[in-house]
Amino acid sequence: MHFASDTLTHLHSAATTMNDQVAELFQYHRAQDVFFMLMLVAFLMMFIRRYEWGVALATLLVFATVFPLYILAYTTFFDAEINIELLIGAVFAAITLVIAIGVFLGHISTIAFLVVGVLFVPSYMFIEWFLFTALDGVLDAGGSILVHMFAAYWGWGVILGLRNKAVNDEPANTSVHSVSFVWLASMLLMVLWPSFVTALLPPEDVISGMANTYLAMVASVLVTYVILWALKRTIDPLVFTYAILAGGVAIGASVDLATPLQSWIIGLVGGGISTLSFLFLDGWLRKKTGVWDTMGVHNLHGVPGIIGGLAPIVLGLAGGAQAIAVVGTLVIGLVLGFIVGLILKVMPKPTKMLDDAEAFPAVEMRATDPA
Amino acid sequence: MHFASDTLTHLHSAATTMNDQVAELFQYHRAQDVFFMLMLVAFLMMFIRRYEWGVALATLLVFATVFPLYILAYTTFFDAEINIELLIGAVFAAITLVIAIGVFLGHISTIAFLVVGVLFVPSYMFIEWFLFTALDGVLDAGGSILVHMFAAYWGWGVILGLRNKAVNDEPANTSVHSVSFVWLASMLLMVLWPSFVTALLPPEDVISGMANTYLAMVASVLVTYVILWALKRTIDPLVFTYAILAGGVAIGASVDLATPLQSWIIGLVGGGISTLSFLFLDGWLRKKTGVWDTMGVHNLHGVPGIIGGLAPIVLGLAGGAQAIAVVGTLVIGLVLGFIVGLILKVMPKPTKMLDDAEAFPAVEMRATDPA
Amino acid sequence: MHFASDTLTHLHSAATTMNDQVAELFQYHRAQDVFFMLMLVAFLMMFIRRYEWGVALATLLVFATVFPLYILAYTTFFDAEINIELLIGAVFAAITLVIAIGVFLGHISTIAFLVVGVLFVPSYMFIEWFLFTALDGVLDAGGSILVHMFAAYWGWGVILGLRNKAVNDEPANTSVHSVSFVWLASMLLMVLWPSFVTALLPPEDVISGMANTYLAMVASVLVTYVILWALKRTIDPLVFTYAILAGGVAIGASVDLATPLQSWIIGLVGGGISTLSFLFLDGWLRKKTGVWDTMGVHNLHGVPGIIGGLAPIVLGLAGGAQAIAVVGTLVIGLVLGFIVGLILKVMPKPTKMLDDAEAFPAVEMRATDPA
Repeated sequence: MHFASDTLTHLHSAATTMNDQVAELFQYHRAQDVFFMLMLVAFLMMFIRRYEWGVALATLLVFATVFPLYILAYTTFFDAEINIELLIGAVFAAITLVIAIGVFLGHISTIAFLVVGVLFVPSYMFIEWFLFTALDGVLDAGGSILVHMFAAYWGWGVILGLRNKAVNDEPANTSVHSVSFVWLASMLLMVLWPSFVTALLPPEDVISGMANTYLAMVASVLVTYVILWALKRTIDPLVFTYAILAGGVAIGASVDLATPLQSWIIGLVGGGISTLSFLFLDGWLRKKTGVWDTMGVHNLHGVPGIIGGLAPIVLGLAGGAQAIAVVGTLVIGLVLGFIVGLILKVMPKPTKMLDDAEAFPAVEMRATDPA
Repeated sequence: MHFASDTLTHLHSAATTMNDQVAELFQYHRAQDVFFMLMLVAFLMMFIRRYEWGVALATLLVFATVFPLYILAYTTFFDAEINIELLIGAVFAAITLVIAIGVFLGHISTIAFLVVGVLFVPSYMFIEWFLFTALDGVLDAGGSILVHMFAAYWGWGVILGLRNKAVNDEPANTSVHSVSFVWLASMLLMVLWPSFVTALLPPEDVISGMANTYLAMVASVLVTYVILWALKRTIDPLVFTYAILAGGVAIGASVDLATPLQSWIIGLVGGGISTLSFLFLDGWLRKKTGVWDTMGVHNLHGVPGIIGGLAPIVLGLAGGAQAIAVVGTLVIGLVLGFIVGLILKVMPKPTKMLDDAEAFPAVEMRATDPA
Repeated sequence: MHFASDTLTHLHSAATTMNDQVAELFQYHRAQDVFFMLMLVAFLMMFIRRYEWGVALATLLVFATVFPLYILAYTTFFDAEINIELLIGAVFAAITLVIAIGVFLGHISTIAFLVVGVLFVPSYMFIEWFLFTALDGVLDAGGSILVHMFAAYWGWGVILGLRNKAVNDEPANTSVHSVSFVWLASMLLMVLWPSFVTALLPPEDVISGMANTYLAMVASVLVTYVILWALKRTIDPLVFTYAILAGGVAIGASVDLATPLQSWIIGLVGGGISTLSFLFLDGWLRKKTGVWDTMGVHNLHGVPGIIGGLAPIVLGLAGGAQAIAVVGTLVIGLVLGFIVGLILKVMPKPTKMLDDAEAFPAVEMRATDPA
């Protein structure tokens, strides 16, 4: 597997201090936490009142396509064996797409998500090859570039290819309970985040990675709250619950390299810039491009992903390859996503955007009994 | 402990490659995941609007009786010591009953669940003895037969013994948030499922068991969606969120034996037949028997449990004992459940079926503040 | 770290039977479970309809202050290195404050929680020093005294210092979905509890600690149900979901010392007395002191914490130091909390108590779409 080339070296050296089988079983639980996070991303996106089941359904459909196809591709074409590293690679691929669909949720029919899943796998395998085989020395143990940046820019590529402006006029109402699910998802994603960024690290880097990740995330909580309070005197829960996760996005590329203090600062910068993106960049981009990033993916994953990707350069740990990785992922993501967007354009559109009624017998079910 | 006799052999051979204590601590986390699943089963059943707290309460009451009584029985009568295997056995017993009560939830008073818990333990210990001591060579590492089939047919035995037709006329309304809890429960159950089916496996089978389980489950997601879309053009969330778990039910008996491709196919067959059971068998059975399987337990656990139980025979890995196990569990489950149902018949009935108001000060609490 | 002085001895002796690194990685997952519980405590307190997001926000703000400050203090002033024990110490500190704020939630402005976090850290470090350095031979592996008692009495100290009676007249309405979140939180806290009480135990005590904890908790479920049914004929979910956790609170101090039967009895006593505290002590205290313990912290953590702290004495395992620890924690908690309460008194008060509208754009968001 390409993406793991540098990580595998680590793991093999770790095998001298810890039984291989034991190390693998530890990865079982970190891997499972990543599957857990994949599902929670759906609940993070559940705030649009009329679309709450549609988000869950779309998440499951892309999981059901990306996960087995990724495994099939690597075992068939690259002689990979099915081990814990391959399973982690497959769920990383799936979670990347679950993040990416947040950009264009509601812009395509439910059944089109099966097509999206199939088309995503080669895109993702290409970016893995680009980052870890074509380039040499890219630091991204925790997926700031591979997962978050690629998700954001591939998703933006899709929406720019699709260019379906009708959705902009749809109301996106929320309800109390759906926003409470977002709080739950955000807070549990924060808890599980260390397993995501250390999933492919050798055992001896896991505890320090946990410390760095939680320090980055609590810094994001603090800075997000302070900025929202200072500028708005009110806490928009749909900005707060998202931006507090930006520390986790930004720490990914240097989780095994930064000091605790550096990690806290990376979280502070990531969370701060994510909050400002939600407040200012979001509206500007919407006006410029004429499309709407339904779940603010660019603000949480795109911008903080860039910050995280560049962090190792600022820390003096990485050089030119890291910069090429960041710029290349942005461009490749947009281009490959755009192509997929054009393909999706020819498929049938949803009759009514952002509405569970497109897929579910929602009207009857909801009419029954209020609250 | 009877049920673990063949598994224990496995574990002892594992001890040669991995420290016993380390293997046991890995089981701690898989065991904990099963306790997590026990609670999530309650939320999977939470969709009936007027019964959402009642389901949680009933789950806790049967947990509070089955778990300690199972441990008490094995330590008192069979000289078992309290170790991780016994704890897993006890939570397997408890989760089996939590599944089983889904058949007759709302048909009995809340307090009767304490009686159900007490009466269930000998039933469950008998089926353990039947499967793993009386029979020789039964393959069921992940509980397709012991947990899922027995839960379904024991539960059906109870409802046939009870025969309380009044409940059929009760409306079972849903609300948006309660169905969203069902989505959450279903998606997290999917994530945790590998820990359930590998809980009693030796360390060297855990990673491949994880791969097989997730492959079976994503196949169920796919087939459930395709069938519902093809036949109905709409996705009933209360069929979808249930049937997608059937792959996990069906993979149980061969999780340590099937190849990845076979696992995917087992999930496809399990999920497909579960979906068809929800769409067609459910109504037919209801008409024939005159009783209503409140939570569709037969469709998710009964039928896919049979598929899973027979899978090792189809794969050429098991023989006559496996067939006897499947048929025997069906018959024994129905008979033992029927006896318990007759006993429950003499206890006071709930004044109003499927209503939290029977147990909770629900009217005041709900009246306060809508949404 | 002071609190771990006796525990560390245990761990060092454990290192002879299990690789240090392996033991540390096992603690990774138990530690993560404690972070999970920290978030769930917020959802346990989410039942007040107009305050459900405010609880989550306050939880995150105290986490964002206590966690890094505790680490900063120990690494700066006590030359601690950042390892898994220090991370567990830090999340224990944070969860203690998350429990404590339940006493005075809604009595102070949201921004004041940042101040509370800063002021709490020295209080908590003092009680750690008192229990594990000043005293000798205090048994409290699972935090009955350090976490639960200190949280309750420090929180009560704060509210007595604040003395803001206005809040007593605020209505505290609930809604169905917010109470369902409480059920979810309570049931998952029960599942994760063994990781909390065994987080600092050596590997060889973890499995027996798990057995003892679950036995204590199922006993609490049973006794809470029986008492509520016997005395009230109805199950108040906001008493039931709380009191069933009292077994976990009470088992903390003797989780590594009690027999399974003793553990079950400790859970029975803890759950029973907690239930009675909710039914009778709560109202009496409110009348006597004129303040309202918003989340019933005294009933779940204070009284069962005392029971748990005294249990080792009853079991004949501890002596005078244990009694001094219990009484001292009560007094020190009240005094230190009282001082913080006086400081908070000079800060601006919330314009409207127990209302998300104080911090969130709640009115618009909730108005949009019912249910």
